[in-house]
Amino acid sequence: MTKESANLNLDALFIGDKAENGELYKSLLNKLVDEHLGWRQNYMPQDKNMISHAEQDSPAFEATVNHMKDVLDQLSQRIRTESVPWHSAGRYWGHMNSETLMPAMLAYNYAMMWNGNNVAYESSPATSQMEEEVGHEFAGMMGYRNGWGHIVADGSLANLEGLWYARNIKSLPLAMKEVMPELVADKSDWELLNMSTEQIMKLLIKSGNHLDEIKDRSARSGKNLQKLGKWLVPQTKHYSWMKAADIIGVGLDQVVPVPLDNDFRMDIHSLETIVRDLAAQGIPILGVVGVAGSTEEGAVDQIDKIVALREQLINEGIYFYIHVDAAYGGYFRTIFLDENNDFVSYEKLPELHKKYGVFTENKQYIKRDVYEAYKAFDQVESITIDPHKMGYVPYSAGGIVIKDIQMRDVISYFATYVFEKGADIPALLGAYILEGSKAGATAASVWTAHHVLPLNASGYGKLQGASVEGSHRYYQFLKDLSFKIGDRTIEVHPLVNPDFNMVDYVLKEKGNNSLADMNQLNHAFYEEASYVKDTLYSKEYIVSHTDFAIPDYGNSPLDFVKSLGITEEDWNQQGKVTVIRAAVLTPYMNTEDNFYYFVPKIKLAMKKDLEAIFEGSRAKQLS
Amino acid sequence: MTKESANLNLDALFIGDKAENGELYKSLLNKLVDEHLGWRQNYMPQDKNMISHAEQDSPAFEATVNHMKDVLDQLSQRIRTESVPWHSAGRYWGHMNSETLMPAMLAYNYAMMWNGNNVAYESSPATSQMEEEVGHEFAGMMGYRNGWGHIVADGSLANLEGLWYARNIKSLPLAMKEVMPELVADKSDWELLNMSTEQIMKLLIKSGNHLDEIKDRSARSGKNLQKLGKWLVPQTKHYSWMKAADIIGVGLDQVVPVPLDNDFRMDIHSLETIVRDLAAQGIPILGVVGVAGSTEEGAVDQIDKIVALREQLINEGIYFYIHVDAAYGGYFRTIFLDENNDFVSYEKLPELHKKYGVFTENKQYIKRDVYEAYKAFDQVESITIDPHKMGYVPYSAGGIVIKDIQMRDVISYFATYVFEKGADIPALLGAYILEGSKAGATAASVWTAHHVLPLNASGYGKLQGASVEGSHRYYQFLKDLSFKIGDRTIEVHPLVNPDFNMVDYVLKEKGNNSLADMNQLNHAFYEEASYVKDTLYSKEYIVSHTDFAIPDYGNSPLDFVKSLGITEEDWNQQGKVTVIRAAVLTPYMNTEDNFYYFVPKIKLAMKKDLEAIFEGSRAKQLS
Repeated sequence: MTKESANLNLDALFIGDKAENGELYKSLLNKLVDEHLGWRQNYMPQDKNMISHAEQDSPAFEATVNHMKDVLDQLSQRIRTESVPWHSAGRYWGHMNSETLMPAMLAYNYAMMWNGNNVAYESSPATSQMEEEVGHEFAGMMGYRNGWGHIVADGSLANLEGLWYARNIKSLPLAMKEVMPELVADKSDWELLNMSTEQIMKLLIKSGNHLDEIKDRSARSGKNLQKLGKWLVPQTKHYSWMKAADIIGVGLDQVVPVPLDNDFRMDIHSLETIVRDLAAQGIPILGVVGVAGSTEEGAVDQIDKIVALREQLINEGIYFYIHVDAAYGGYFRTIFLDENNDFVSYEKLPELHKKYGVFTENKQYIKRDVYEAYKAFDQVESITIDPHKMGYVPYSAGGIVIKDIQMRDVISYFATYVFEKGADIPALLGAYILEGSKAGATAASVWTAHHVLPLNASGYGKLQGASVEGSHRYYQFLKDLSFKIGDRTIEVHPLVNPDFNMVDYVLKEKGNNSLADMNQLNHAFYEEASYVKDTLYSKEYIVSHTDFAIPDYGNSPLDFVKSLGITEEDWNQQGKVTVIRAAVLTPYMNTEDNFYYFVPKIKLAMKKDLEAIFEGSRAKQLS
Repeated sequence: MTKESANLNLDALFIGDKAENGELYKSLLNKLVDEHLGWRQNYMPQDKNMISHAEQDSPAFEATVNHMKDVLDQLSQRIRTESVPWHSAGRYWGHMNSETLMPAMLAYNYAMMWNGNNVAYESSPATSQMEEEVGHEFAGMMGYRNGWGHIVADGSLANLEGLWYARNIKSLPLAMKEVMPELVADKSDWELLNMSTEQIMKLLIKSGNHLDEIKDRSARSGKNLQKLGKWLVPQTKHYSWMKAADIIGVGLDQVVPVPLDNDFRMDIHSLETIVRDLAAQGIPILGVVGVAGSTEEGAVDQIDKIVALREQLINEGIYFYIHVDAAYGGYFRTIFLDENNDFVSYEKLPELHKKYGVFTENKQYIKRDVYEAYKAFDQVESITIDPHKMGYVPYSAGGIVIKDIQMRDVISYFATYVFEKGADIPALLGAYILEGSKAGATAASVWTAHHVLPLNASGYGKLQGASVEGSHRYYQFLKDLSFKIGDRTIEVHPLVNPDFNMVDYVLKEKGNNSLADMNQLNHAFYEEASYVKDTLYSKEYIVSHTDFAIPDYGNSPLDFVKSLGITEEDWNQQGKVTVIRAAVLTPYMNTEDNFYYFVPKIKLAMKKDLEAIFEGSRAKQLS
């Protein structure tokens, strides 16, 4: 079942909306705890107990236990009072979260009792090996033949690490020119700054025992950072990219936003124009970030076209590093992989998905261009992928994967106390990553999830499918939805047919084409259906929201806004559109039965929220 | 009991070496799991189950559960086969780890079921509030009146964040000169680069609505990084500092090592000389890192003297940022705080410690200069403190704390989708930190530990005391230890009387003054008493080791080496001394009874290891 799983039942892997599998969870948990306790008891069983029964019966012991219980009660009360019910099957349609996988939670709990630290193999032999395996599984998932990856605390850090790779690699040819000019003889600075990563890695091998000296002259020295060129990101500039450019020292001034198209994907023509314009000015391109699953729209950039553009420009002496930020959508690549982990043809997808019951209906939810984007992942240098998003593993479990394991050498360090040089062990992890100490439990958690759910259409692909199918049901439902509130008609308008599993939409009063009013309505609706008002436990329908503002989106929302009857003039004046945003991660909304069970409940809850807005306390401000 | 705890029983807070409190752990865990399951069941109880009993009885469900159980069995087997028994009371004397606090583990397990993400308040109201409280508790622990802190995935990242603060703050006056020259009129560039953090913060308030523009011209732009000056770190240059300087773009070329004294602390005279020499060359000092609890020796740098030097140099127009890397020793500051969290006088320490039973014997283990170093923490700009080290909380829980909450504005960002501007909530965490998504469970874990153990001598201080007392017992024991192996006498020589709770020592054959032989012996001993050979479960005594090599240590180990009868010539030739290293975190070795119970067992195990070296398979290589 490791490589394929013909008949995986996803419902067996979650505790469940109503804790349907709660007893199963507890029995597995207790078994694991007992296995740990037995291990403690049986390491050197000849040693006497340090804590005697008499001490356990003493007043101080008892008082301390009672105090601990009081604090745990406070903890429990506070968390139960103010937490978000994203385990809900059909009530939660907001942030990028849902139930997490029972096996991942169990593995975390279990491994935590040993408290391994994966920064060094010696501190955590078992979980360090698991992280090494997970790293290779990440690489396999992306189609990398000689890749490597590791777990990162979160996607922002993984993005930072990707930029660190890009920066240090890009600077190497200049360093080679200083240290071993013969390696790069006859190359101009422009040529040095436009060498491909593959070429640079080949030269690095040739550098032999000058490697450390070359690294010392690379960007890590602090020199040449401003020479390396521009870092191109989608115009929406997710703040993790701004932070990363700040932190890495390249600087915000080197970040160039690339406009989006009407599907909220990076506009490839704009990308080409920007690259050519910069090149014409003699400014190199440090790298380009493509996003697979944008945080606001779930849009998937056309990675294949970014790669194709690079192929074309190589002939003109222009090269840029490509990092794919698939923190959100990375695991979606498993839906394209067959039981041999091969990327199947688009034509064969329906057959594959039928075989493993990836979708409950015989529909093709996956757009051709999304398919092509994912197919091209194996051509980019590095990818961010977060198990704690579409891997359904608890926080904090981000990840990064690189195309060529040799790239590690560019950023590596060594420290005596954690690394025993020359020992025959798989990876001195702390030397090759941005972070220091890291929980072995996270690796155990991700490893277990990967081994319960094969990383192809039979396992994780099926889970992605449940989420995607749920999002399409939700999209179809919203498309034709409207409400009568008094004598007003409130219509629902989804933004775009989802690339992945995120559905954005607006509520709009029919006949009222004022963008300001529409924005106010959507914000008020968000406030009704979110934490901002009342307790979460009382919310019958929970959403999140976002603003598409001109500085971040340019005119990419304009087509949508105009389609609602709003004028371009109004758009320019307001400068933004407020939308309701739902990341549909729940694995239960794929079946017709489940979804239509919740439809009347959702409608009722939405209607109540709208009534509160137009007829309740908010009526005044909106009248 | 929150502010003080007259009668805290530490043994009630751990599962125990022999799982003595295993049943207590299980009963508390099950209660918490039940509370979570009940919460799931009672959010919208009118909704039907998504997972039916019929489905739970189906073959696919059963097969999936069995598969999950198989994978969990593999997990359990692998972890039990290759994990480090640092829960052991008297067998593990190696890396910086031990049992973790039961309440912290329980809180993690509990909060993980909700899987909150503390990057945004909306995603995790309860645990976000807890992190905010923990941040203020960190500040209180350090004596900061207007401070703030937060949890970080690990100490390396916290150090990087500290350097990020230093870099961006240091660059602000240059940015002010560009944007609002009137703010810094008549100041030379040298003066701008030597303004105190306090002055800079005051000017920032004055900048009013030019704040963003000034930040845009600060180091985050990518400009001026090389102008900011040198970053001074202890000569041992823990690799996290090298990585940090690389990543932050300041560069390794700007890192200046400061020699150590014979106690393995930063040599303050050398520091002064370096600062003055640089200043004389017109090179500013970006900042100085003091370490409280070095990773190899547990040495505590004289923070008070670094602060005093800065006070003195301010009068000469020289200023530097100070960051204290107390990732390891940060929680030790609680031992100096009374029930009002006031830092007590050195004279009153014994009384305070007696009141709360911090030590079992009436001895003063704390050196005066270590006391003074901790006292001065409240004078530095930022401090790294890791709950997953001396906080006895599971990985990954690092932390950082800053003296002035306003410093946050220097590094802050905003992103629309996670932050609802203007909402009346405590902290938009993601905007003020280096990381992105972060587990709410970590905050719950640290919060619970802090509330079970008050952050003063009555709680955490008592736990630190147990560890410190254990290390002194171990040090005294090793001082007079020797072994007869055949006709050889092997003596044990501890390095220094510990500043904190780490004990380093060497094994040496009496009469053989060859440093090469001694290094070989110690390395062989480490291999016998560590994971390198055989299975961990069979090890009766486990240590770690480190090398003090001239590039990292200069001649600071020379006095010690010479005291063993080894010549300076030999030292210069070998260039390093290999030592056995024990971070004594176990909370059980403080009492005389417990410690002397283990003494014969440790002696026997050490003797066996030495016999294996001299008489077993290794004899040949060492003969």
